[in-house]
Amino acid sequence: MIEVGNVFGWLATKAAARERAGLRRLLRARDGAEAVLDLAGNDYLGLSRHPAVIEAAEAALRRWGAGSTGSRLVTGSTTAHAALEEEIADFCGAEAAVVLSSGYLANLAALTALATPNTRVVVDAYNHASLVDGARLARGSTVPFAHADVAAAEEALATNPSRRALVVTDSVFSVDGDLTDLGALAASCSRFGAALLVDDAHGLGVVGPGGQGAVAAAGLAGRPDVVVTATLSKALGGQGGVVLGSRTVVRHLVETARPFLFDTALAPASAAAALAALRVLRAEPGLAARVRLRSAELSRGLVAAGLPASTPAGAVVSVRAPGPRAAAAWAERCREAGVAVGCFRPPSAPDGGSRLRLGARADLTPEDVRRAVAAVRAAALDVPEG
Amino acid sequence: MIEVGNVFGWLATKAAARERAGLRRLLRARDGAEAVLDLAGNDYLGLSRHPAVIEAAEAALRRWGAGSTGSRLVTGSTTAHAALEEEIADFCGAEAAVVLSSGYLANLAALTALATPNTRVVVDAYNHASLVDGARLARGSTVPFAHADVAAAEEALATNPSRRALVVTDSVFSVDGDLTDLGALAASCSRFGAALLVDDAHGLGVVGPGGQGAVAAAGLAGRPDVVVTATLSKALGGQGGVVLGSRTVVRHLVETARPFLFDTALAPASAAAALAALRVLRAEPGLAARVRLRSAELSRGLVAAGLPASTPAGAVVSVRAPGPRAAAAWAERCREAGVAVGCFRPPSAPDGGSRLRLGARADLTPEDVRRAVAAVRAAALDVPEG
Ligand SMILES: Cc1ncc(COP(=O)(O)O)c(C=O)c1O
Ligand SMILES: Cc1ncc(COP(=O)(O)O)c(C=O)c1O
Repeated sequence: MIEVGNVFGWLATKAAARERAGLRRLLRARDGAEAVLDLAGNDYLGLSRHPAVIEAAEAALRRWGAGSTGSRLVTGSTTAHAALEEEIADFCGAEAAVVLSSGYLANLAALTALATPNTRVVVDAYNHASLVDGARLARGSTVPFAHADVAAAEEALATNPSRRALVVTDSVFSVDGDLTDLGALAASCSRFGAALLVDDAHGLGVVGPGGQGAVAAAGLAGRPDVVVTATLSKALGGQGGVVLGSRTVVRHLVETARPFLFDTALAPASAAAALAALRVLRAEPGLAARVRLRSAELSRGLVAAGLPASTPAGAVVSVRAPGPRAAAAWAERCREAGVAVGCFRPPSAPDGGSRLRLGARADLTPEDVRRAVAAVRAAALDVPEG
Repeated sequence: MIEVGNVFGWLATKAAARERAGLRRLLRARDGAEAVLDLAGNDYLGLSRHPAVIEAAEAALRRWGAGSTGSRLVTGSTTAHAALEEEIADFCGAEAAVVLSSGYLANLAALTALATPNTRVVVDAYNHASLVDGARLARGSTVPFAHADVAAAEEALATNPSRRALVVTDSVFSVDGDLTDLGALAASCSRFGAALLVDDAHGLGVVGPGGQGAVAAAGLAGRPDVVVTATLSKALGGQGGVVLGSRTVVRHLVETARPFLFDTALAPASAAAALAALRVLRAEPGLAARVRLRSAELSRGLVAAGLPASTPAGAVVSVRAPGPRAAAAWAERCREAGVAVGCFRPPSAPDGGSRLRLGARADLTPEDVRRAVAAVRAAALDVPEG
């Protein structure tokens, strides 16, 4: 029998193992006045602090209060949610949209509503954790294919083609910033009558004409067999998630998806902030191209400095580190040099490799880029071991 | 082979079936200026619109921007999150706390982090959807017991007592507002070396001394074998979720729980709003007793009017309806009479029965209570059939 005080004794053993493997994780709280060059966040367009965004959020706070007070179908829906849904669907070229309280729950909702236990869920091996969890929850059979390998995805579809299938992928992958070939994937889906679910979290606002996203860039916007999820927390600078699709698909989610039905609606201020951010993006269609320019410069600079940097399709550039300890030490050195970068170690790195992750921002200056490259280079030279 | 335009053809069939069963669901957007008596929401203490709460959210917007810009371990943690965690742990008598972006994700995080595939997850049959999904995701074996039946829970624990077990329950159940016997459940857990996870979403701010919650009321606060989840979106009037437990448990969640690691942190304004709401609650310890008084009056009034109303342990009172169509029609009549109430039909009602759900608020007047009772009574008389 386990003693009361010791019911969770096994957690201490696990913690010690993580510590030994160089996988200790600590929370570090920002006070809002840090004097660092921030390349760790996902506020790619700098919209989180845009005056129009703050103003819209404040107005919503005064109009509706701090919370939505209930689930979307009970009391949680406000005209801010409805307006955001209409405008983001229009912007992305979808028939309809539904807003949820996070991108994570948007993915769980889309997968559980659209994959029945009879569905084969055909997934890229590097998909985001929320897509992985969604596929698990959906209880269909999950069939993984090698990362970004469309032929492998098609092979999976060709096996057992009579059963319903849903192909699921990130567009721009969150850690390395590479873009999968959505056009080819959609063509494979069409050949086998499969539906396609694309998580465009890192594409929206960054990829495609004016930042309409990777699905629009691939010419797939508005296709009835394509469903798109995205988050309001990256290029749009706020919080929340969205599922975009045909009216039929969106209605199905609204009426059946558990992470929609049984979750308090996104705070009205966050819905209003995302709508204001979207309007800034529409008014400044050059923002998306600007952040891609900056990430390309960052990647070139890192490669020129002899570092194994990825080639970005969106805002994100990663730099491989020899191991988790090196990655953590590099990130710490960068911070000491006034440059905040992300540090991704297992289980946050899809292939088990550790990396630094740099998110470019549209407002970076050439000097910012130089400083970032210099900081990463110095860190990598200084702490070479894994 | 399924045609491109028809990949989601099966959704239309499902929609037609829901329609026939009286289970159509429509979103209704509030514009913030509705002249209704609101008993549909979960803003039990009216804190969503409290001036101190709005002010704190506005200050956080100006300080950090609209979004947290990243996951908690990368850039998403602010001093607002840290302060909220410290104060809510102190308020609830827990050693530590970790804030997530929703109560839904808090439950998924707690369950997936604390139940391994070897764990028997022993669950109340009426648990909230997020606990059900969390148990599914955790991939341990799920063993349900009859609603609120502690003897049945103990029986489940007695079967196979050598394996690790986690008992999981709501405190105040969200639809009928009844409270499970947490003391007895904890005693059963102790007898079998099992851990206890309590979702106190509807207890926090409403039940226990000063609103410290149902776990504190049962004398279980601070126990190392008890983990508590709650939401910031009901009595605290905002958005977000929290897991409370020992430092070991919280550290384990922070370092391993996927819905924590891979989700953008709660917006700083929502963290600041919840902290301000908590401080109002501490400054006005009578609020919790007041809302319980109102819900008791509401229940007595409904019963006196001949309606099958539940006996509330917290803020929530439910009234059984003969069927889903009657419930929807009753709710519609109430709204026409200026009283907003919740309408719960399958799958939102745990036993398949349909109900009206009324959430009392601390600021209701005796006249409000009379009006609500009269509206429900008139609706039920007018539309008696299921
Ligand atoms: C690809 C991808 N999908 C989904 C999410 C989840 O979105 P959110 O943070 O809004 O929950 C993230 C990041 O957090 C992501 O990178
Ligand atoms: C018992 C219970 N747990 C969890 C949740 C989920 O919390 P949230 O709405 O903050 O996601 C809810 C309600 O939404 C609830 O009623």
